[in-house]
Amino acid sequence: MIEEISNRRTIRKYTDQDVSYELLTKLLEAAAHASTTGNMQLYSVVITKDKEKKAALAPLHFNQQPCIGASAILTFCADNNRFNKWCQQRKAVPGYNNFLSFTSAAIDTLLLAQNFATLAEHEGLGICFLGTTTYNAPQIAEVLNLPKFVVPITTITVGYPAENPEPQDRIPVNGFVHKETYSDYECEDIDRIFNHKESLAVNQKFVEENKKETLAQIFTDIRYTKKDGDYFSKIYFDHIKGQFKF
Amino acid sequence: MIEEISNRRTIRKYTDQDVSYELLTKLLEAAAHASTTGNMQLYSVVITKDKEKKAALAPLHFNQQPCIGASAILTFCADNNRFNKWCQQRKAVPGYNNFLSFTSAAIDTLLLAQNFATLAEHEGLGICFLGTTTYNAPQIAEVLNLPKFVVPITTITVGYPAENPEPQDRIPVNGFVHKETYSDYECEDIDRIFNHKESLAVNQKFVEENKKETLAQIFTDIRYTKKDGDYFSKIYFDHIKGQFKF
Repeated sequence: MIEEISNRRTIRKYTDQDVSYELLTKLLEAAAHASTTGNMQLYSVVITKDKEKKAALAPLHFNQQPCIGASAILTFCADNNRFNKWCQQRKAVPGYNNFLSFTSAAIDTLLLAQNFATLAEHEGLGICFLGTTTYNAPQIAEVLNLPKFVVPITTITVGYPAENPEPQDRIPVNGFVHKETYSDYECEDIDRIFNHKESLAVNQKFVEENKKETLAQIFTDIRYTKKDGDYFSKIYFDHIKGQFKF
Repeated sequence: MIEEISNRRTIRKYTDQDVSYELLTKLLEAAAHASTTGNMQLYSVVITKDKEKKAALAPLHFNQQPCIGASAILTFCADNNRFNKWCQQRKAVPGYNNFLSFTSAAIDTLLLAQNFATLAEHEGLGICFLGTTTYNAPQIAEVLNLPKFVVPITTITVGYPAENPEPQDRIPVNGFVHKETYSDYECEDIDRIFNHKESLAVNQKFVEENKKETLAQIFTDIRYTKKDGDYFSKIYFDHIKGQFKF
């Protein structure tokens, strides 16, 4: 399994072959054995396969390639709605309208999502996580009819692979693992950790094409700017607060 | 793999056998191939094996059994510190002091944690996630020397299994999967979804022993009360805000 997971690749191009609800449901059923806070399973997954519904979601993910060509779009949501309804039907008063309840649900959701991803890839499917879920959560919630106490956390697009990319680079493991306590990074640690990434031809090309001095500037000035981050932070946090009523 | 993951169990009791740094690092190296936002790998993992350090962490996890007996305690942290330092050393100005940056890092962290859990279990290790990480994050941060831009998200205890429990119950898969859009739950859906959980002897015993009317009241009145949730929500959110400077 170490080898299989070490060689995994995100797949962004898919064939036309359908991925059935039945297969997706079977994989989600197994994935739900991931750990969950107090066995509350504070999540829901919306499987979108209908062409029009997918077309409604695509612009909310900035029309990224995997979203356009996927057989199915799975939106993984933190969900306290179901649990709250159960409490209310059972003479119990749920007090889950706070940040911690959202956090527990978000954790449950992401453990489920990663477990699903592992199972889907083992099954020969190609998957891609869409981080854009946190950017346009209010609009995604509207398209998917999410009620209060339900917040989109991440999205996975699924299809049969139509590309065969190399696995992506990763920083050295001792670049993110700390023994006993956190050892903060010195200048030479940073150089050592990021050196390989900076040396890759594909990254050097990015820097050149965008007329930047460093790869880091590609991130700060183009891909993940402060302006966008601050803007979408407010929208996402307000959405969570609104849905969870805190 | 479906069968293996479907039969997994959380392990809370461990033998005295040591789990080496080398093995944990090997598993974390493979786990890091999980998807990550823009390949930024916004996480760190602190492996605590030293007896005194583990003893310092244990009360912060309310001295839960798996924390006491584990060979290693792995604290998975959202980490923008390393990436920010890289930017600063490369003439780039990181604007990652906002809620979205924290969210991206938390997502990366949890996908890594679940991937590690899958690999560790496949290797024959027993693991337990500790949700208490979000309760006492400021004190955990202090024990582990976490700098600003680093926040504990979840903890996994690891050891060789000294128990052989049954897999835990889960709600039916159609209880959390929705087709195309979210179908909100009617009373009869809630009954159908939670019926099995309520019928389990172990849960009926909980209700009886605690002199409650329903299993839901065990959650709302004892395990996850509004008072605790509101209290720890404020602490955790203030900690995140303090660490991420927003």
